[in-house]
Amino acid sequence: MKEFLFRQLSLDKNPSLSILTKIIYIVIFVSIFFVVIETEPSISNNYKHFFFNVNMFFGSFFVFEYLLRLYAVGLDKRYSGFKGRIFYIFTPFSLIDLLAIIPAFIFPGSSESFLLRLFRVLRIFSILRTSKNTEGLRLIIKVFMNKKYELLYSLLITLSLIFISAVLLYLAEGGIQKEAFGSIPRSLWWAVTTLTTVGYGDIYPITAIGRILTIFITITGIGVVAIPTGILAGGFSEILSQSKDKSNLG
Amino acid sequence: MKEFLFRQLSLDKNPSLSILTKIIYIVIFVSIFFVVIETEPSISNNYKHFFFNVNMFFGSFFVFEYLLRLYAVGLDKRYSGFKGRIFYIFTPFSLIDLLAIIPAFIFPGSSESFLLRLFRVLRIFSILRTSKNTEGLRLIIKVFMNKKYELLYSLLITLSLIFISAVLLYLAEGGIQKEAFGSIPRSLWWAVTTLTTVGYGDIYPITAIGRILTIFITITGIGVVAIPTGILAGGFSEILSQSKDKSNLG
Amino acid sequence: MKEFLFRQLSLDKNPSLSILTKIIYIVIFVSIFFVVIETEPSISNNYKHFFFNVNMFFGSFFVFEYLLRLYAVGLDKRYSGFKGRIFYIFTPFSLIDLLAIIPAFIFPGSSESFLLRLFRVLRIFSILRTSKNTEGLRLIIKVFMNKKYELLYSLLITLSLIFISAVLLYLAEGGIQKEAFGSIPRSLWWAVTTLTTVGYGDIYPITAIGRILTIFITITGIGVVAIPTGILAGGFSEILSQSKDKSNLG
Amino acid sequence: MKEFLFRQLSLDKNPSLSILTKIIYIVIFVSIFFVVIETEPSISNNYKHFFFNVNMFFGSFFVFEYLLRLYAVGLDKRYSGFKGRIFYIFTPFSLIDLLAIIPAFIFPGSSESFLLRLFRVLRIFSILRTSKNTEGLRLIIKVFMNKKYELLYSLLITLSLIFISAVLLYLAEGGIQKEAFGSIPRSLWWAVTTLTTVGYGDIYPITAIGRILTIFITITGIGVVAIPTGILAGGFSEILSQSKDKSNLG
Repeated sequence: MKEFLFRQLSLDKNPSLSILTKIIYIVIFVSIFFVVIETEPSISNNYKHFFFNVNMFFGSFFVFEYLLRLYAVGLDKRYSGFKGRIFYIFTPFSLIDLLAIIPAFIFPGSSESFLLRLFRVLRIFSILRTSKNTEGLRLIIKVFMNKKYELLYSLLITLSLIFISAVLLYLAEGGIQKEAFGSIPRSLWWAVTTLTTVGYGDIYPITAIGRILTIFITITGIGVVAIPTGILAGGFSEILSQSKDKSNLG
Repeated sequence: MKEFLFRQLSLDKNPSLSILTKIIYIVIFVSIFFVVIETEPSISNNYKHFFFNVNMFFGSFFVFEYLLRLYAVGLDKRYSGFKGRIFYIFTPFSLIDLLAIIPAFIFPGSSESFLLRLFRVLRIFSILRTSKNTEGLRLIIKVFMNKKYELLYSLLITLSLIFISAVLLYLAEGGIQKEAFGSIPRSLWWAVTTLTTVGYGDIYPITAIGRILTIFITITGIGVVAIPTGILAGGFSEILSQSKDKSNLG
Repeated sequence: MKEFLFRQLSLDKNPSLSILTKIIYIVIFVSIFFVVIETEPSISNNYKHFFFNVNMFFGSFFVFEYLLRLYAVGLDKRYSGFKGRIFYIFTPFSLIDLLAIIPAFIFPGSSESFLLRLFRVLRIFSILRTSKNTEGLRLIIKVFMNKKYELLYSLLITLSLIFISAVLLYLAEGGIQKEAFGSIPRSLWWAVTTLTTVGYGDIYPITAIGRILTIFITITGIGVVAIPTGILAGGFSEILSQSKDKSNLG
Repeated sequence: MKEFLFRQLSLDKNPSLSILTKIIYIVIFVSIFFVVIETEPSISNNYKHFFFNVNMFFGSFFVFEYLLRLYAVGLDKRYSGFKGRIFYIFTPFSLIDLLAIIPAFIFPGSSESFLLRLFRVLRIFSILRTSKNTEGLRLIIKVFMNKKYELLYSLLITLSLIFISAVLLYLAEGGIQKEAFGSIPRSLWWAVTTLTTVGYGDIYPITAIGRILTIFITITGIGVVAIPTGILAGGFSEILSQSKDKSNLG
């Protein structure tokens, strides 16, 4: 029984997810879904009792799961006995599990603890302990690591463009649109939303000189997306040709 | 005559499109065009009679084509005889053809059945039965298949960024802009339209802390487009170098 | 003298631009600039006399240049003599030159002929006759040619996404926002501006179901930019590795 | 002591940044931060005395640093003695340093000289003198150099698209929306913000023909981002395969 729980709770590094682990992940997602929905007053105000019960249920569930996990972990030599259990409690993934059950004790059924409940989402990262499912993510991280200097300078180019654009538009429009461009920090808000091509349209230049500057800025700003994308594309090609070279030698 | 129809209706796997098949595809597109136009009340209200006739014409056309197809398919051994015809009717592409003629019987000339008429667009996919014209599409699908794990994790990174942004802005602006950021689901609408750089501008942060957070979020959000694009670019390069390696060996 | 003009007017295929040709290109750009500025009523209304003179000047300039060109082209054997000149007038690039001087005769100083004047911009394309300067453009065109099927299917995926989005939002919002989503053509306007991430914000979904659909649509829509960019990136990599293979062999 | 300063101020080309240089860079960033904040009237009006002192402090700091630098540079043979010091003052990086201290003398504590203070940001570029930290930036610049013709033609394609779009929308909407599309320069503002996908939403077509044209323009406009990104991605792949070829030979 204890051994079954040990295996099912993925406490050893088994390559694929056990059925119980899958169920726990689903429960985490469902609990997060209810935390998100509960913040909407037009829903939660009409179903206060329902959400109270939901919070009680998920709180109890995660406490029960935590205790089971604490019980089963004894099969691992490092964590056996009382001292081992204390040691286990302070491992990073176990602390995250602990964080996820705190709201069950402090605010068992209330909605005040929504931020603590959101921390349950961190438990998803425990999936990274299993190696089979995460090759895709590891590849993305590897490309970012390989290209970190290029990406950093691409970020600096972006930040410089944003800063220069903000100063230019502050000079061009600051006198006329005091609310929107009346200082560099205000102008920065415009520069960021424009150069990332979000373009809310809450503020935009209205003078001829401001618009001509914006035309140059937005066309230059194509590089803000194009440069990091080009770097990453090169990085992903490189990774692929490296693994091909390896397989050619093997 | 039956054989001519059989060949023309692409019922055997001929590599290129026959003249009759091309005509049918054009008729499908024209019929879809009229379905789209008919939904616009400022047009359809003034030409009710015209659209009634249009619907009657296309309904009759597709019924006639369906019957011809049912008649000619007998040349295929699998579908010959009455039993074969019944069997043919329940093949996937034939069911789509059937779906496309239903409105001709239920609501022959009315505009209520527009959704059923739109299903005619699905008939276009029967073009995938012929192999010559679809190499480009197959290549795109192949790249998506090869890179499915990277693309999946890139999607997860995007969804995480959207979720974190929504929570942060809910905390920063929820108290001040109750209508726009008063709950995480409302905040999610903002987060999605911002991080995909659509930026409708219906809602946006107005507090200093909300705007500073948005500056960090949108700059990080450049990765939302850059990462999947980089992955796909790497995938398309890989496909090309693979086919080159093959041709070097051949 | 005639020979000097012949060489200077680039009538033979000399690899670099002559000084006179450069001057003519600059005059073309300046004349286009004035055509553009003249359309702005707040400027042209105050300087009617000035723009009349500008139009007269550029009209005379291009007529004079046309006559010089017609005179000098006689040195080319194909276009010598009266018959040769007539033949030359009907070559494509010469017809564009003719188009550019028509406003000088029909509406010499008026502003009505602005569209005819804009055709002068087409004269810029005569730069394509010289081969040295256009390698970069040829490379871009070659990549588009090599990848035309992939790009075509990428366009079809984009158009399908736009069409499906428009139908979904018409169904979700058509009853509530009649002006914005009351028909598929209206919905298409929203779908295009959203999926290309322009996001004017003139219309956007307001119902819960419409917003949930939009969240899925915009996230899927990341592919609208990512797929063609990935294809082009692969194409540019391929071109480079091809030319490297050649230089390895040479 | 002089030698210690000489080394610490990075006046010889030492590969990594000295502690003093790092401190100076941090001071530059902090001083820029205060210049930016001071432009915001809602902050600076309440803390006039504080910002006066801040300006005095940074002014004195940069004057003191400049004098130290001038004193220590004597260890470099080229700049030793009075004549050498004069010669040093007129080197490009030293002129930037001089520019950064001018506001300390002309407007010591006032806010009028904010532009001169912003020039301090240029001092950051002196980091380029050290070679170790800037490989990433050099790579980006190298790709831009290698692909300059392709990028130039990609820019020309973008500008042509913007120009053609502006003319088309001027013809389609100019008569109806005089304020927004009443001239080509006005139309250009719309064309740039649309094709770069910023989409402020301050102006947009409202006629059927204008919207149909915009649908074609924005879909074509996907290339505005896709072409330069593809070129850069190809360029970054090329750089990587070149350095791999080298390392294979070495």
